[in-house]
Amino acid sequence: MTVRLAIIGAGTMGGDHARIFADEIPGASLQTICDADAARARAAADKWGARHVSDDPEAAIRSSEVDAVVIAAPDQFHAPLTLASIAAGKPVLCEKPLSQSSAECLAVTEAEEKRGKRLVQVGFMRRFDPSYIEIKTLLSSGALGRALMFHCIHRNVAPAYGFEGSMAISNSAPHEFDVARWMLDADYKFISVFRPGGATAAKSAPVFMILETTGGQLVDIEVNISATYGYDVRAELVGEKGTAVLQAPVLSDVNLGLKSYRAYPEDWRPRFEEAYRRQNLAWLKSLTSGAPVGASAWDGYCSTAVAEAGVKALRAGKTVAVELVAKPNFYA
Amino acid sequence: MTVRLAIIGAGTMGGDHARIFADEIPGASLQTICDADAARARAAADKWGARHVSDDPEAAIRSSEVDAVVIAAPDQFHAPLTLASIAAGKPVLCEKPLSQSSAECLAVTEAEEKRGKRLVQVGFMRRFDPSYIEIKTLLSSGALGRALMFHCIHRNVAPAYGFEGSMAISNSAPHEFDVARWMLDADYKFISVFRPGGATAAKSAPVFMILETTGGQLVDIEVNISATYGYDVRAELVGEKGTAVLQAPVLSDVNLGLKSYRAYPEDWRPRFEEAYRRQNLAWLKSLTSGAPVGASAWDGYCSTAVAEAGVKALRAGKTVAVELVAKPNFYA
Amino acid sequence: MTVRLAIIGAGTMGGDHARIFADEIPGASLQTICDADAARARAAADKWGARHVSDDPEAAIRSSEVDAVVIAAPDQFHAPLTLASIAAGKPVLCEKPLSQSSAECLAVTEAEEKRGKRLVQVGFMRRFDPSYIEIKTLLSSGALGRALMFHCIHRNVAPAYGFEGSMAISNSAPHEFDVARWMLDADYKFISVFRPGGATAAKSAPVFMILETTGGQLVDIEVNISATYGYDVRAELVGEKGTAVLQAPVLSDVNLGLKSYRAYPEDWRPRFEEAYRRQNLAWLKSLTSGAPVGASAWDGYCSTAVAEAGVKALRAGKTVAVELVAKPNFYA
Amino acid sequence: MTVRLAIIGAGTMGGDHARIFADEIPGASLQTICDADAARARAAADKWGARHVSDDPEAAIRSSEVDAVVIAAPDQFHAPLTLASIAAGKPVLCEKPLSQSSAECLAVTEAEEKRGKRLVQVGFMRRFDPSYIEIKTLLSSGALGRALMFHCIHRNVAPAYGFEGSMAISNSAPHEFDVARWMLDADYKFISVFRPGGATAAKSAPVFMILETTGGQLVDIEVNISATYGYDVRAELVGEKGTAVLQAPVLSDVNLGLKSYRAYPEDWRPRFEEAYRRQNLAWLKSLTSGAPVGASAWDGYCSTAVAEAGVKALRAGKTVAVELVAKPNFYA
Repeated sequence: MTVRLAIIGAGTMGGDHARIFADEIPGASLQTICDADAARARAAADKWGARHVSDDPEAAIRSSEVDAVVIAAPDQFHAPLTLASIAAGKPVLCEKPLSQSSAECLAVTEAEEKRGKRLVQVGFMRRFDPSYIEIKTLLSSGALGRALMFHCIHRNVAPAYGFEGSMAISNSAPHEFDVARWMLDADYKFISVFRPGGATAAKSAPVFMILETTGGQLVDIEVNISATYGYDVRAELVGEKGTAVLQAPVLSDVNLGLKSYRAYPEDWRPRFEEAYRRQNLAWLKSLTSGAPVGASAWDGYCSTAVAEAGVKALRAGKTVAVELVAKPNFYA
Repeated sequence: MTVRLAIIGAGTMGGDHARIFADEIPGASLQTICDADAARARAAADKWGARHVSDDPEAAIRSSEVDAVVIAAPDQFHAPLTLASIAAGKPVLCEKPLSQSSAECLAVTEAEEKRGKRLVQVGFMRRFDPSYIEIKTLLSSGALGRALMFHCIHRNVAPAYGFEGSMAISNSAPHEFDVARWMLDADYKFISVFRPGGATAAKSAPVFMILETTGGQLVDIEVNISATYGYDVRAELVGEKGTAVLQAPVLSDVNLGLKSYRAYPEDWRPRFEEAYRRQNLAWLKSLTSGAPVGASAWDGYCSTAVAEAGVKALRAGKTVAVELVAKPNFYA
Repeated sequence: MTVRLAIIGAGTMGGDHARIFADEIPGASLQTICDADAARARAAADKWGARHVSDDPEAAIRSSEVDAVVIAAPDQFHAPLTLASIAAGKPVLCEKPLSQSSAECLAVTEAEEKRGKRLVQVGFMRRFDPSYIEIKTLLSSGALGRALMFHCIHRNVAPAYGFEGSMAISNSAPHEFDVARWMLDADYKFISVFRPGGATAAKSAPVFMILETTGGQLVDIEVNISATYGYDVRAELVGEKGTAVLQAPVLSDVNLGLKSYRAYPEDWRPRFEEAYRRQNLAWLKSLTSGAPVGASAWDGYCSTAVAEAGVKALRAGKTVAVELVAKPNFYA
Repeated sequence: MTVRLAIIGAGTMGGDHARIFADEIPGASLQTICDADAARARAAADKWGARHVSDDPEAAIRSSEVDAVVIAAPDQFHAPLTLASIAAGKPVLCEKPLSQSSAECLAVTEAEEKRGKRLVQVGFMRRFDPSYIEIKTLLSSGALGRALMFHCIHRNVAPAYGFEGSMAISNSAPHEFDVARWMLDADYKFISVFRPGGATAAKSAPVFMILETTGGQLVDIEVNISATYGYDVRAELVGEKGTAVLQAPVLSDVNLGLKSYRAYPEDWRPRFEEAYRRQNLAWLKSLTSGAPVGASAWDGYCSTAVAEAGVKALRAGKTVAVELVAKPNFYA
């Protein structure tokens, strides 16, 4: 059985999804690539062998020749297009964040619940990263004892244009918010935010967060959007009896010029290449099996809600409680 | 376009190939799974969704519903079935070794040349391993200067039943023989073989080989089929200005019980999972593009020829010259 | 010239100092080993070749045959015996903490200032650890840009009898408080304390601290006195352009039983063996040169003051300001 | 008790020994520093506080104010000065090699035996390196099973003036010849030598040796005197059940400029700083205890004998037997 996909957005992420589905996922077929920039849509369609192009995402979603939807449009379109997919009764893999507004996320969860079927997967691909999974498996085995802390580091080479501290929380940290919730199987109660430089921190200064979970664990996250030296994501799960440390893929070590070194990638794609592939493969299989995988719309809501609390904590300079609505049985 | 495959052999390797093509390679379709053991063929066909089963590999190869052939039968059938595929004009991905007899390998190269079209890829999957490729890319860049030596280690947990020293050379070392030829872009002139314990070495004792290449490089290979502690493949390319050291995939480090450790796999499959996937993907694409990739039948012949010389060197206790026939222009 | 030492305390630390001075530090001579337990003093004196034993530390300090004093008695005697050494005009190497009371630390700094000569070195041996020094040297070179954050982890296998959270701050964390001040060349303004389990945390639960410095840097410290898996001290200095990660000594890696591992020590001594030796050597040389090295009484005061603020923050569950008296010119 | 030392040779090694004994070894006193270059002897004596200088090594050795001798003169003087020390009945720590002539080494062992007392320690300092010792301890514990192979790599940044292949065997490799004999508790029976480039190898090309021991083990050694990228000494002990890999000291890892790196030293001194200190400390203590430690004159002979066989094997292009005289009971 072949699943005919509409890919909405032909930028970096949309292009990557088109490549992955075309090249590495059996059972997927690129029906439509949709972008406001028609030339960009055309280029992607030619490159990856899509049948059609479109500049009307809602029409593409509704098309009877489209079985499922991949949303990689700019952030502000994520929720509206997910809602359109739900309305059309079509499964959707939506890039993170589901929305930067928790209220809008709730509109999605409510629409999905009303529709009565799990249709939405949010693209928190780290849940499919083999390294995070190995640590979760070890934790589940009991070998480390109960989880006590989860240390996270998320560093980028350089901020995108206009990036500032609050965006480190609302745009970058959600990956950690989600993967730590998933790792610890817990929700957040409080978030505190610190920055080097404090109130007078440069826009690109790192942000350091401490979160307390419903399970009594601590999660600390450094987001450093201007780390300069490389794209570097790290994590350590601290249990009562031992710890597990995430390792990024390393292919070779080089001995040259009085150094023994390994290279950092410049962005997230080489680091999470395998996570994206496995995410997209698992999503496609879930369409056949009917058993949802990955992050749900509810998970998308939770990440956004904690990000909102984090931005408040940054501005207020104090600890802020994370308020969540009651979890619907639909997502149990 | 979908390529309809016959997979010959439903054992460990055949099952793995069926899984990879079914699950991870777009454009492949399992037409037939063939095994002398009909129940085993049936089980694999059911599991991976193949249309037919067969216990007649030659018929499967000839079938008009089969576009291409994957040979994962026992070693002694590799060459005969490859010849049958050539006779049928069908592209074939044959597990290594092409044959344990260099004469039989030459029968394949001659048949392929006569047919006038490159049809055979030998399953030396390490050429598709991202780590080996990273080192070859670095070497090609000139950063390391000219290659001088290539140190190789190949360790297994335990030998298969009946395994002995000569089989370490004829069955295990060919992976190194091939990947070092490919890495250095050179052929072998001489091989010397040493063993701990010398003439009275235990059957499972390691074998240590030194090869001299036409490019003046040294290749040394430890094959240790009874290393006990884990499956471990290593390599270091030594250039005039620096070296590059192969790294195996590591997902996490664990701190537990007064140790910081990372796990070894028990066999080759976790280590080379990605190499197999990329090999099979590249092979399938090469069927469309018409541009052969990976190890050719000629490469299969070269590996077997050096293995034969190695076994002679082991038995004679002296250095043996590696004799190759002239390379046909067909493989240039 | 030989310096005749009185070592006060013949327990673990006192015995180690006796061994180091006897075995590894030229120019030192063990004049007296002093302990309330006469048999313990005698055993140490015999083992390390001290001339006398005593159970009267004040007399030992005053003795005309003693040139300098090493204090390794229980914590509550550190300040009184340091004051006695100052009164006797004798240089003193006092184990950390100088006192667990900042007021008592100030009594020492005032006495030393009154005496008009720098006589006190506090045993914060990490300042002499080659790894911390390498990072400080790199930071000073400007290669990393300005320092932004310093991440610290301090883990013990198991807590001493009766150990609880506040002692993780008052007894363990002072090593980090001191080495981070020294690394960053800054003082602390605020400290916040978190624990997994929060108000209901087990006595042995980890403590996580965030400190903000006068230089605008963040220092975070995990103290985990019940880490179980090994003695493990880590640090990472995060600068604007790059980071440096502390490495503990590793002598070999072992491949055994499906693991590649390196061993953790059970306590701090193997980890900081070289730091102690270099500290004691530098202290002894400073007695001849007259140029003080290492942590001063003032540094001892600063560590204790922040520890007091940390204990308050732990109990109050909020951020606490670190209040320091003005730094006397004497320590400039 | 203070041991009054004569240090013969005030070059790099002699200066290092003077520094170590003056700065880090209690119980040593620099009586005389001796060098053909009077100004160099004077500079070293002033720097490290020696009482006298001399340009007559034999007189210095005979002096009644000298208790023991450290020989760090050029290689050709090692044996004659060691013989002079034996004649004077004085303990001697002689830099390696004892002599580049095995016959001359035997003259030393015979003189020592005639004198009837072990007086000679050869400066094979790797026997005191904590990393090699940790591996030997593990091997002795039985955890790795019996030793099968010992892989060794010895790389220098650049060759000294005039250095060529045979000197890689006669001057560099003796460190490995000795430490592998010590590790495996075995002697050598055969040596084979290979070079990239073979007979037409450049003078600075690496040398690769395979040795077979009386215990049936294989020792392979790469000596690469022109490795360019750093000073790098490695070793792996392969046992029946597992392996142990030597680790060089690493103080910190640096993340900078798209690399994670650790630095290599430019020469052997940072790598083996601790081995030299422990060697010299152990030697000095052995003078008091009367129990010899480290490499004996016999060990010095064995290393030179295998080096001679290695040079023959290099020139003849074939395997050469290592011939040793019978081991005197004196060295049992």
